[in-house]
Amino acid sequence: MKQRNRQRDAFYPVQCAGAPGSWRARLHEIIFGIDTPAGRAFDIGLVVAILLSILVVVLDSVPSIGGPHRKLMYGLEWFFTLLFTVEYVARLATVRHPLRYALSFYGLIDLLSVLPTYISLLVPGSEALLDIRILRLLRVFRIFKLTLYIEEYTRLGEALAASRRKIMVFLSVVLMAILILGTLMYVVEGPDHGFTSIPMSMYWAAVTMTTVGYGDITPHTPLGKAIASFMMLLGWGILAVPTGIVTAEMTARRTDRRQGTRRPRACDECNSTGHDVGARYCKDCGAPLPGTVPAH
Amino acid sequence: MKQRNRQRDAFYPVQCAGAPGSWRARLHEIIFGIDTPAGRAFDIGLVVAILLSILVVVLDSVPSIGGPHRKLMYGLEWFFTLLFTVEYVARLATVRHPLRYALSFYGLIDLLSVLPTYISLLVPGSEALLDIRILRLLRVFRIFKLTLYIEEYTRLGEALAASRRKIMVFLSVVLMAILILGTLMYVVEGPDHGFTSIPMSMYWAAVTMTTVGYGDITPHTPLGKAIASFMMLLGWGILAVPTGIVTAEMTARRTDRRQGTRRPRACDECNSTGHDVGARYCKDCGAPLPGTVPAH
Amino acid sequence: MKQRNRQRDAFYPVQCAGAPGSWRARLHEIIFGIDTPAGRAFDIGLVVAILLSILVVVLDSVPSIGGPHRKLMYGLEWFFTLLFTVEYVARLATVRHPLRYALSFYGLIDLLSVLPTYISLLVPGSEALLDIRILRLLRVFRIFKLTLYIEEYTRLGEALAASRRKIMVFLSVVLMAILILGTLMYVVEGPDHGFTSIPMSMYWAAVTMTTVGYGDITPHTPLGKAIASFMMLLGWGILAVPTGIVTAEMTARRTDRRQGTRRPRACDECNSTGHDVGARYCKDCGAPLPGTVPAH
Amino acid sequence: MKQRNRQRDAFYPVQCAGAPGSWRARLHEIIFGIDTPAGRAFDIGLVVAILLSILVVVLDSVPSIGGPHRKLMYGLEWFFTLLFTVEYVARLATVRHPLRYALSFYGLIDLLSVLPTYISLLVPGSEALLDIRILRLLRVFRIFKLTLYIEEYTRLGEALAASRRKIMVFLSVVLMAILILGTLMYVVEGPDHGFTSIPMSMYWAAVTMTTVGYGDITPHTPLGKAIASFMMLLGWGILAVPTGIVTAEMTARRTDRRQGTRRPRACDECNSTGHDVGARYCKDCGAPLPGTVPAH
Repeated sequence: MKQRNRQRDAFYPVQCAGAPGSWRARLHEIIFGIDTPAGRAFDIGLVVAILLSILVVVLDSVPSIGGPHRKLMYGLEWFFTLLFTVEYVARLATVRHPLRYALSFYGLIDLLSVLPTYISLLVPGSEALLDIRILRLLRVFRIFKLTLYIEEYTRLGEALAASRRKIMVFLSVVLMAILILGTLMYVVEGPDHGFTSIPMSMYWAAVTMTTVGYGDITPHTPLGKAIASFMMLLGWGILAVPTGIVTAEMTARRTDRRQGTRRPRACDECNSTGHDVGARYCKDCGAPLPGTVPAH
Repeated sequence: MKQRNRQRDAFYPVQCAGAPGSWRARLHEIIFGIDTPAGRAFDIGLVVAILLSILVVVLDSVPSIGGPHRKLMYGLEWFFTLLFTVEYVARLATVRHPLRYALSFYGLIDLLSVLPTYISLLVPGSEALLDIRILRLLRVFRIFKLTLYIEEYTRLGEALAASRRKIMVFLSVVLMAILILGTLMYVVEGPDHGFTSIPMSMYWAAVTMTTVGYGDITPHTPLGKAIASFMMLLGWGILAVPTGIVTAEMTARRTDRRQGTRRPRACDECNSTGHDVGARYCKDCGAPLPGTVPAH
Repeated sequence: MKQRNRQRDAFYPVQCAGAPGSWRARLHEIIFGIDTPAGRAFDIGLVVAILLSILVVVLDSVPSIGGPHRKLMYGLEWFFTLLFTVEYVARLATVRHPLRYALSFYGLIDLLSVLPTYISLLVPGSEALLDIRILRLLRVFRIFKLTLYIEEYTRLGEALAASRRKIMVFLSVVLMAILILGTLMYVVEGPDHGFTSIPMSMYWAAVTMTTVGYGDITPHTPLGKAIASFMMLLGWGILAVPTGIVTAEMTARRTDRRQGTRRPRACDECNSTGHDVGARYCKDCGAPLPGTVPAH
Repeated sequence: MKQRNRQRDAFYPVQCAGAPGSWRARLHEIIFGIDTPAGRAFDIGLVVAILLSILVVVLDSVPSIGGPHRKLMYGLEWFFTLLFTVEYVARLATVRHPLRYALSFYGLIDLLSVLPTYISLLVPGSEALLDIRILRLLRVFRIFKLTLYIEEYTRLGEALAASRRKIMVFLSVVLMAILILGTLMYVVEGPDHGFTSIPMSMYWAAVTMTTVGYGDITPHTPLGKAIASFMMLLGWGILAVPTGIVTAEMTARRTDRRQGTRRPRACDECNSTGHDVGARYCKDCGAPLPGTVPAH
């Protein structure tokens, strides 16, 4: 049994449809498995195909590249679409519950990988710029197929899920600050200086507190600049202060020992200092330190 | 007794006014309590009302939304004002010391939630743009009513209060740097290049050291650019250096073990680590550490 | 003996000049001491005077404030100068080695506090804008007198001194990146796009890698934008990656225990898992864990 | 044997060519060794020469400095080129495998240090601006010769190599976000607002998520500004959230102790801490933890 299948049955329902040995099982092994050379070759080939196809989409969007080479781009796009269609059909053919797979996260991504090009066939007048851009976005979602291949993403996702309450609380505080301080700047600066509405001011507040600082909207009044400076120090300080606190605690003990400002304990026997706060025995002679009860 | 009441009597004086069983007590339970379904439903309803009312204020400030829908906005604003007025009166009616509540933090927030709309009645000529903007700001303070419902805010506030001296010291160092380096740039660049006064230069110094970097004021002289580069490295370095130091210490031990240059030792007896490089005895149990000859 | 004097004799030579009880000793106590009410009152008064005098300098530099109130500003500046002159003379009069004090760090700061105003007397034609700005900068250095009063600055300074080699190494790597990548952009973009020389390109590289991003110089060529994106990810990544690595290690253990992907040890006796990597005894039943030798 | 040689034979093949005592060996000692006064003097002199030569290249690129002093710059550049040529020849002459050295990292850097000036001789028409700029870049690579002299760079490099998988995974997630969110903004904003292609939008996404924020391209539509705000909070949050989580955990224990909600316990026997909340036995020595009833 594949380690990947075991962990993801609900999220990634890819149990094999065929009896062991059948062509279905062999194909299933190649597509979903990592144990055989064929399986691994398939995976590498697929990763390369995904990256190349996305490169084609990205380059096609550049007018100076996509413009002069319409035939080539068209051909490449159809090549990849057909490739991914064959892959998609193969997947559906070899899993026990094709419908379940088609509705799973990766099944939908696989469908999105091929759908845009077919859609552009059915809707022939889609030279409308927005449509083309949307189709490009859908094709670019193919990148999510890659996440299957990196174990660490699962772990990253779980770590995030575990901390989600802390993240929510933190985010809500930041959003409240953006709302309040943004509205304050809306009052202080006003529409004459670019702060035309509360949402606009909140956008500026986000730009400032995250230290991005485009400069498309800037404060002009002295009070506005003062409030803005406070907000910048807040956004930057949220990064600097915790880091500094952690580092300060680590360094403080070392510095204190050297200076002797906090009364560091001296061993009664050998008079040495520099013992950890929680240490019970002298690290130099083994005698018990004053103020603690020895373990034996 | 509600856990929330117990912790916050001074800050949030909401003891029940009525005898148990009276309508006062039942209403008090709904408004301030979290133990009954009615209490929880009230809380959820209130949170939704707060968020919706703020959404109305925010959207109303956008000329293209608030302009064409003045009647609707007016109606919605009165709806929420009346809703919060009823809530406010109910709170005052059910607590033992209504005056104390009215003067507490949340009592004042509740008052601010409803006052602006009544003020706009009494002062009919408040189409003055600044007045409208100030009223919007006051309404937006309703968001603080939400903080009652998230426990973690209390803990966050306490953690901040505990570290306040460290934060003050750190902030004062940053402010001194902004003052000195800002004034230095005022000397070097001068009013011709945008540094029209010391406060203006301090604003630029804050924009630079917090890495926001609007670009509304930039150095033009070579010396100014050099000083600015130093300031940027300072502001960014305050974030990077402590992080790097902490990570370096963590990684160094691992790398050293592989290389064999430092020998981190674990005590044979009690398995504790973290012994000083020159230590000869385990600080946790007194046994001799491996690799050293005991003093006795 | 004052704790401050003891720690700083070399850096801050302020031993008392007079015999105990003399007017010198009493004045010394007031100026340098913190044990008597008079001493503490002096300190508070001095801090307030320093902050007010700097406020005067800062506001004076704003044309709209300093312009119309020249007489007032002039008077205030002389008031503070005379105040600090008296303080300076008093300090010199009460220390045992006035020359040593005058040449120490704080002695020089005290001198700089008063000198500008006297200089502006002797050089009557100093309405030259640069001169005025330089005099303002010198006056603003008074802020350093405040550092005497905050203990934590000493500790902060020592922590920095302790880590100076690490900081130097880190800074040198960053400077090398700024040099190499800046020069690379100088080649790729060239003077037509703002990268007029290597120093200019290094300034841009510092602006980009520290994520300040003024926007006064930006890349225009596709290759330039690609290199710039790499540099941004580098500068931002130096902040993000160590933080992420530290947090990942902390969270990884917790997640692994829950998933059971690394083979966590199960206690032979009670079958519980979730033991720390270095733990030797089962935290739930006290029996020794497999793979470790118990301490007793 | 030199400690540096031992660690780097493969990377830095500099074994001595001559028998001990010969002129080769003595020269080898001076160039590659650090044990003799001559060796150390050579090292210091070389570092100074490298820094000065780079200063010459940097200043030469500034039109106002390099322009008027062409003869001086030319002379200085030839001086350093000849100096480094002599050094290069000396190195090749004293190592046992000159070809291996010439193809090693430092051998190539040494070659690059001198080649540009010779090239500029052979190709006399290289006043072409691009050529000159490329030659300056090659000369600036001399800075890498300095890395030999700082031990910490090796350790830094090894720490990076050790974490390379984590860094790759993290970078890939960031690149995927830049691709997806950049393409999304390409759809939402479109070429009319500066988002002319997917690569351009990815460049903007990198500028925004790394909080650099040039402002050369900014969102104009409300939806675009909302998505941009999300991306800014993401890029800034990746810095803020882990830091906050680490600090919160450190502070929570302290706050909890004061409040008495969690009971961090120290083992009576061996004084170790860090026991899980539900643990009943000390993980370091097996003794029962206070406050719990042992299982047996």
